[in-house]
Amino acid sequence: DFFNALQEVRPAFGVSEEELEQAVQGGIIRYSENINSILAEGHLFVEQVRKSERTLLVSVLMHGPPGSGKTALAASIAKASEFPFIKLVSPEAMVGFNEMSKVSYLSKVFMDAYKSPLNVVIVDNVERILEFVPIGPRFSNPVLQTLLVLLRKQPPLGRRLLIIATTTERSVLAQMDLLNAFDADIAVPNVANHDELKHILRELKAFNSDEERADVLARLRDTTLTPQLNVGIKKIVMGVETARQDKDMSGRFVNVISRAVVENGADLQGGDPRLY
Amino acid sequence: DFFNALQEVRPAFGVSEEELEQAVQGGIIRYSENINSILAEGHLFVEQVRKSERTLLVSVLMHGPPGSGKTALAASIAKASEFPFIKLVSPEAMVGFNEMSKVSYLSKVFMDAYKSPLNVVIVDNVERILEFVPIGPRFSNPVLQTLLVLLRKQPPLGRRLLIIATTTERSVLAQMDLLNAFDADIAVPNVANHDELKHILRELKAFNSDEERADVLARLRDTTLTPQLNVGIKKIVMGVETARQDKDMSGRFVNVISRAVVENGADLQGGDPRLY
Amino acid sequence: DFFNALQEVRPAFGVSEEELEQAVQGGIIRYSENINSILAEGHLFVEQVRKSERTLLVSVLMHGPPGSGKTALAASIAKASEFPFIKLVSPEAMVGFNEMSKVSYLSKVFMDAYKSPLNVVIVDNVERILEFVPIGPRFSNPVLQTLLVLLRKQPPLGRRLLIIATTTERSVLAQMDLLNAFDADIAVPNVANHDELKHILRELKAFNSDEERADVLARLRDTTLTPQLNVGIKKIVMGVETARQDKDMSGRFVNVISRAVVENGADLQGGDPRLY
Amino acid sequence: DFFNALQEVRPAFGVSEEELEQAVQGGIIRYSENINSILAEGHLFVEQVRKSERTLLVSVLMHGPPGSGKTALAASIAKASEFPFIKLVSPEAMVGFNEMSKVSYLSKVFMDAYKSPLNVVIVDNVERILEFVPIGPRFSNPVLQTLLVLLRKQPPLGRRLLIIATTTERSVLAQMDLLNAFDADIAVPNVANHDELKHILRELKAFNSDEERADVLARLRDTTLTPQLNVGIKKIVMGVETARQDKDMSGRFVNVISRAVVENGADLQGGDPRLY
Amino acid sequence: DFFNALQEVRPAFGVSEEELEQAVQGGIIRYSENINSILAEGHLFVEQVRKSERTLLVSVLMHGPPGSGKTALAASIAKASEFPFIKLVSPEAMVGFNEMSKVSYLSKVFMDAYKSPLNVVIVDNVERILEFVPIGPRFSNPVLQTLLVLLRKQPPLGRRLLIIATTTERSVLAQMDLLNAFDADIAVPNVANHDELKHILRELKAFNSDEERADVLARLRDTTLTPQLNVGIKKIVMGVETARQDKDMSGRFVNVISRAVVENGADLQGGDPRLY
Amino acid sequence: DFFNALQEVRPAFGVSEEELEQAVQGGIIRYSENINSILAEGHLFVEQVRKSERTLLVSVLMHGPPGSGKTALAASIAKASEFPFIKLVSPEAMVGFNEMSKVSYLSKVFMDAYKSPLNVVIVDNVERILEFVPIGPRFSNPVLQTLLVLLRKQPPLGRRLLIIATTTERSVLAQMDLLNAFDADIAVPNVANHDELKHILRELKAFNSDEERADVLARLRDTTLTPQLNVGIKKIVMGVETARQDKDMSGRFVNVISRAVVENGADLQGGDPRLY
Ligand SMILES: Nc1ncnc2c1ncn2[C@@H]1O[C@H](COP(=O)(O)OP(=O)(O)OP(=O)(O)O)[C@@H](O)[C@H]1O
Ligand SMILES: Nc1ncnc2c1ncn2[C@@H]1O[C@H](COP(=O)(O)OP(=O)(O)OP(=O)(O)O)[C@@H](O)[C@H]1O
Ligand SMILES: Nc1ncnc2c1ncn2[C@@H]1O[C@H](COP(=O)(O)OP(=O)(O)OP(=O)(O)O)[C@@H](O)[C@H]1O
Ligand SMILES: Nc1ncnc2c1ncn2[C@@H]1O[C@H](COP(=O)(O)OP(=O)(O)OP(=O)(O)O)[C@@H](O)[C@H]1O
Ligand SMILES: Nc1ncnc2c1ncn2[C@@H]1O[C@H](COP(=O)(O)OP(=O)(O)OP(=O)(O)O)[C@@H](O)[C@H]1O
Ligand SMILES: Nc1ncnc2c1ncn2[C@@H]1O[C@H](COP(=O)(O)OP(=O)(O)OP(=O)(O)O)[C@@H](O)[C@H]1O
Ligand SMILES: [Mg+2]
Ligand SMILES: [Mg+2]
Ligand SMILES: [Mg+2]
Ligand SMILES: [Mg+2]
Ligand SMILES: [Mg+2]
Ligand SMILES: [Mg+2]
Repeated sequence: DFFNALQEVRPAFGVSEEELEQAVQGGIIRYSENINSILAEGHLFVEQVRKSERTLLVSVLMHGPPGSGKTALAASIAKASEFPFIKLVSPEAMVGFNEMSKVSYLSKVFMDAYKSPLNVVIVDNVERILEFVPIGPRFSNPVLQTLLVLLRKQPPLGRRLLIIATTTERSVLAQMDLLNAFDADIAVPNVANHDELKHILRELKAFNSDEERADVLARLRDTTLTPQLNVGIKKIVMGVETARQDKDMSGRFVNVISRAVVENGADLQGGDPRLY
Repeated sequence: DFFNALQEVRPAFGVSEEELEQAVQGGIIRYSENINSILAEGHLFVEQVRKSERTLLVSVLMHGPPGSGKTALAASIAKASEFPFIKLVSPEAMVGFNEMSKVSYLSKVFMDAYKSPLNVVIVDNVERILEFVPIGPRFSNPVLQTLLVLLRKQPPLGRRLLIIATTTERSVLAQMDLLNAFDADIAVPNVANHDELKHILRELKAFNSDEERADVLARLRDTTLTPQLNVGIKKIVMGVETARQDKDMSGRFVNVISRAVVENGADLQGGDPRLY
Repeated sequence: DFFNALQEVRPAFGVSEEELEQAVQGGIIRYSENINSILAEGHLFVEQVRKSERTLLVSVLMHGPPGSGKTALAASIAKASEFPFIKLVSPEAMVGFNEMSKVSYLSKVFMDAYKSPLNVVIVDNVERILEFVPIGPRFSNPVLQTLLVLLRKQPPLGRRLLIIATTTERSVLAQMDLLNAFDADIAVPNVANHDELKHILRELKAFNSDEERADVLARLRDTTLTPQLNVGIKKIVMGVETARQDKDMSGRFVNVISRAVVENGADLQGGDPRLY
Repeated sequence: DFFNALQEVRPAFGVSEEELEQAVQGGIIRYSENINSILAEGHLFVEQVRKSERTLLVSVLMHGPPGSGKTALAASIAKASEFPFIKLVSPEAMVGFNEMSKVSYLSKVFMDAYKSPLNVVIVDNVERILEFVPIGPRFSNPVLQTLLVLLRKQPPLGRRLLIIATTTERSVLAQMDLLNAFDADIAVPNVANHDELKHILRELKAFNSDEERADVLARLRDTTLTPQLNVGIKKIVMGVETARQDKDMSGRFVNVISRAVVENGADLQGGDPRLY
Repeated sequence: DFFNALQEVRPAFGVSEEELEQAVQGGIIRYSENINSILAEGHLFVEQVRKSERTLLVSVLMHGPPGSGKTALAASIAKASEFPFIKLVSPEAMVGFNEMSKVSYLSKVFMDAYKSPLNVVIVDNVERILEFVPIGPRFSNPVLQTLLVLLRKQPPLGRRLLIIATTTERSVLAQMDLLNAFDADIAVPNVANHDELKHILRELKAFNSDEERADVLARLRDTTLTPQLNVGIKKIVMGVETARQDKDMSGRFVNVISRAVVENGADLQGGDPRLY
Repeated sequence: DFFNALQEVRPAFGVSEEELEQAVQGGIIRYSENINSILAEGHLFVEQVRKSERTLLVSVLMHGPPGSGKTALAASIAKASEFPFIKLVSPEAMVGFNEMSKVSYLSKVFMDAYKSPLNVVIVDNVERILEFVPIGPRFSNPVLQTLLVLLRKQPPLGRRLLIIATTTERSVLAQMDLLNAFDADIAVPNVANHDELKHILRELKAFNSDEERADVLARLRDTTLTPQLNVGIKKIVMGVETARQDKDMSGRFVNVISRAVVENGADLQGGDPRLY
């Protein structure tokens, strides 16, 4: 029954619509003007696919540091398109697949997409789908080759397709010639500084008042010696939740975030998504 | 039914005639004298295969940067030959194939070609068929060895064959000794400069008037500081279509094209196809 | 019957509850304040998983030198949670599995966990599960990719999951981008110095009296020339037991421990778990 | 029926006698004294195999640049022997074979040869049969090991065997210790200079008169600035045929040949086959 | 019947008890105090396994140069324990096994051991079981991982296990992190000098009298210019036996042993097992 | 019938007794004192296996340059033993075998040997059985590991075994730790100088008289400028036979041998087998 149980695994991981919902359910906090431009840029490509006569296929890469919000933003853009076919292809849906199953699964998703007039396919976490690991480096060449071709394969007459991919490893994709296969790319930056962080804490209702939040930010600045942050929105949400369990909530929050600031190097990435 | 669905995949990707049509349907804009010489050169080899008694097999490599128009030009030359058997072998037709399936598929295409008196086989995007990736580098040696042999295998008595291959990776092919296997090669350059770009914008009916186009080119020159371009025709078509969705059409177009100019290095490649 | 016998192997290695018991049965000696903070930290994450609305999945890495007590501490934290589903995934349970069986086994354990409302999964000795060896280096990329995804895969609605992993190879995990996949990490240091060792010897009832113990420590210090230790608790327990068989118990104990001190370098790691 | 079609492939590629005919059908132009000595050398080894009591197996390697005429010369020597069993083993006959099929095919050819009293086996294009590619480098070690053994395996009592192999990669074979396995080697040089080229053009009835040919050679010399050539006979035949399609036949011929001269470096190889 | 014959192979190689007998049958010559301490050390660990309540598993590595007597000493220690279950796992018992058969075989031996209350498992020649070769280096990672886990896997309640492994490649094991998996290690040195050699020759009744032996040693010293030896006991036994066939017995013996002295470097290893 | 034919291959290559005969049938020319000492050395090990009580297994490596006569000498020693079981294991007998078939075949040969009281197994051309190639380097580790074990595996009670292996790659075997597995090694040098060559030519009845031979040697010396030779006996036999087909027999012989002298470097190896 061990092996019976294993066969149970596959279908259970294959339910993708639920995943699209999961990706958007945390909501989007518009903590900076960047967020608005990213969504606008996404809208533009949606419209190009909907209307252009000459470009029936458009592919866009959303790249940025871990936890910066790439998946949530890609999913939001896709949902907002209201295209009849939207599919989120994620590594989570392919746990336990071998190379050839991944190749087949990807092929099948795109074949399905070619059957509907207007389609979005999100290829989430491309480097993970490629089984990339920096030691070696290693990755699945069959999966890479499949993506390289599918990203440029024209849909049949009367079909239109927007592909949105996400990655934390833009430079790795460049080395693989995969970056070239995209028509455009959009940077998703980390939360850049204390102003943006303040916005987020307020929205999350973290700490009891603006004064308390100001106090926390002051302590954070005392620790990191800079008003810059360069921390992903995901880490901030996690930090707030861990801190909520601690008697010394602000102390714990400052501790978690300041370690993240140190690890990332506060000034290395930030503001302008074009520069990342 | 997941696996039933997968079996559906293969035949669906195997329809090659449709692909030949797709490759030529965007049309050829004769934006420079180069385009005419490329087509003339192609015609010459078609005639050699049709008439020569001593060379029943001729193989030609069309190489140039991504999106420079290689596939469209190769397909046009092939169509213009009016040979009874024309086959476009493309990576898109082999999505999901493993190495040995590719080897078999290639062998089969050539075997089919040997049955008709006059044949063209286009091997599109050779580096992709080879599953080449610069990291490593890796590629499929069985597929490479098959191509190395098929490119030189004489058709049987009474049969004649023109092979046209395309690639963006001429130097990689050279390292693989694959370049040597061709009898001739033809360079397909990028759009070189603003003169050629003006020609193209007019043909595409992009922007409303010659003045507007002149204005756009002026702004582009202000941004890139050069009248050189070195951008593929495909990128230009994409840029026009994206810009059409933007309220600020010229701004968007200048933005997209100037980024491409910067990425490629405007002066690195251009004019004379012989030099590429 | 050789092969019949082999089939017997698998189930016999698969009984994991017994392993959880084995991991805690040696008990925890609170020989230093560190031990208390490690347990408190663990408690905090247990509570976060139990209560937070936004973070249903929390993953923690316990890292430290060989034999420092990682597995015993992870198992204690898990047991103390009193969550209904607690599973210890260890390399011992996967002896003789090939890569794909490991992938399936890991997938299955997590799938099981998603069925209960509150869960702890301990992934013990991650580098061993990954089949890591420094020569090469080599490891199982399929297993790595599976862990990378499972560590971030959100449980379905209404389910909550704490993942505790242990490793002696934190820097290797960092190179594999696996460290990034954890929300937090906890260092488990070696026994740092003679004060802590004295505490342990007393608890283990090793040697007959405080004087004898003081004498042993004095001889140890004469040999190593330092009151620092940096030796794992596991080695100390083993040293005591080997010494008990020797007529010259103290001599043997000093010999075994001083060799360990020399091998590890007494001052390299120690006190503050944050620094390791 | 895709796979039915594939099975058709193998037998269709296996007809080797036709290939022996194809190899000799272009004829041998005796454009230099070298050609005569190569044929004489070949005759000598044929006679040794026919008559010597102590050496029942003789193996010879014919090596030279691409298109220098190795296969045609090897096939001519073999045909001239009038031995009852002559087999041309070529990569073309093994398209689509995997490593083990190649090993089996080679074994079978030699086993067949051991059944007849006097035999020639031509192993054409050894580096291609080995699936050699300079990147890596890669090659099929099972095929190499099989050749290494078959080249030295004594035929059974009463049988005699001449093995003639051809290659463009003599130095690669040396690195593989395959060169050592041959009893002798014969160099096949390129067409060395304008004198030899004149001889060839006359035999091929290229251009209308000796004056026209002299004129073409003069223009070629003006372009390359040397009376040396170092171009393979195969390239010259191809150049003549392509030129025949061009209105400006001499211009095209000079263009094709001068590019070949530049690529090869006119003085690098030439005259004396011993020096190559 | 070739393949029938092959199936015969496996069981014939699997009889391990006979191998334990073979390993001890040459006897132990106590030619130095080292031999006594090695045996005493072994006895100590036997008693720890028999009696300790906290350490039910003890693993020991015996390492030393080729032919120094590791296997004979390990087998002697095991036999002297009189434990009910003693198993010698040797590469000889796994000839022709592939990686996975070795993994299964090792798992099965340990599973068997867990069924008896008191057990010794000797893992002889670990580097050979690992299929280690210095070129590369290469080794079987599945076998290594299995050993890494089995060496630390606690026997179930009520069972006790002593593991003795032997190797000539201690530093290789260290690089593989396998050395760390042992609780203790014991060095087995070569025969160090002429005094020890004299003892051995006398026990082996080699040469007819003490004078003759003194003479041989004198001649040996004249050749090697040192009273140091650093040669394995196995080589000495072989040298005596080869010399017995030669008319000039002493000449042959001096010749064989002096070559071994030169190859090993007489002073590099020797006396104190702790230093090796 | 292609595949039926392939199955025919295996048994046809498996007849080893014929190969033993083939190996000795060219005869041994005692052209130097070395030949006698090699045969005497071989005799010594035969007698040790026959008589010694302590060493039931002796393994010897015969090494030397290509064509120096290793196989003929090993076969002669084996035949002279008149042991009831003599088996020549050669790469020729394993053409077309994959790694695991080689492993099985080797295991089976030794298992057969363990059934007879007195045995010789010749393992010819070890580096070829190992599928060694210097590029990489590559070799079959399963075959290597099998040889490493079989070379040291004691025959069962009452059985005795002499193993003679041959190789041209002594230093490669050393790198593989395979050299260590032999109890002794014997060097087989090339023909060293003109004196030895004269002896050989006379025995082969090459050229018509002693004067003619003297003349040939004089011409050879004029060409190579040294009385040293360093050429294998096999090459000399081949040179004589090729020369016999040439009208200018001496010219051809001098040509072939002088090329060999130049390739080998006349002074690099020679006289004393101990030095090789
Ligand atoms: N402005 C925002 N942009 C993106 N995500 C936001 C924003 N505001 C809040 N969020 C929340 O932050 C989280 C971002 O997580 P998400 O998984 O999208 O990040 P990611 O960059 O894809 O991470 P990873 O690198 O791990 O794939 C989501 O829970 C999302 O609901
Ligand atoms: N002069 C031209 N030459 C080639 N293509 C042209 C030309 N004018 C217009 N086009 C259009 O430009 C596009 C060129 O795309 P095509 O796929 O042929 O480029 P490519 O070089 O093969 O790209 P890739 O490197 O991606 O394979 C086609 O849509 C074609 O119709
Ligand atoms: N304070 C303590 N912390 C941890 N373990 C303790 C402590 N006190 C006593 N022990 C005992 O010490 C042993 C620690 O062994 P454990 O296997 O947990 O170490 P580990 O770090 O996981 O080792 P490894 O690196 O081999 O996985 C256990 O037997 C445990 O019962
Ligand atoms: N003297 C000659 N020697 C060889 N070939 C000649 C000669 N004269 C004319 N030919 C013709 O030239 C061609 C030589 O081609 P061939 O395939 O034998 O060259 P190759 O060296 O084997 O090429 P490759 O390196 O591609 O294997 C043949 O068509 C042959 O008929
Ligand atoms: N004091 C001794 N210690 C060990 N072996 C001895 C001793 N005296 C005699 N012998 C004999 O010497 C031989 C040692 O061989 P053994 O195979 O044990 O060596 P080893 O170190 O295991 O060799 P290898 O490195 O090849 O595995 C045995 O035949 C043994 O009977
Ligand atoms: N003194 C000799 N020693 C060895 N072989 C001799 C001698 N005299 C004559 N011969 C003949 O020389 C040939 C030696 O060939 P053999 O195959 O034994 O050489 P080898 O060293 O094994 O070659 P390879 O390196 O190719 O395996 C045989 O035909 C043998 O009969
Ligand atoms: Mg994401
Ligand atoms: Mg193209
Ligand atoms: Mg542990
Ligand atoms: Mg050829
Ligand atoms: Mg041993
Ligand atoms: Mg030989």
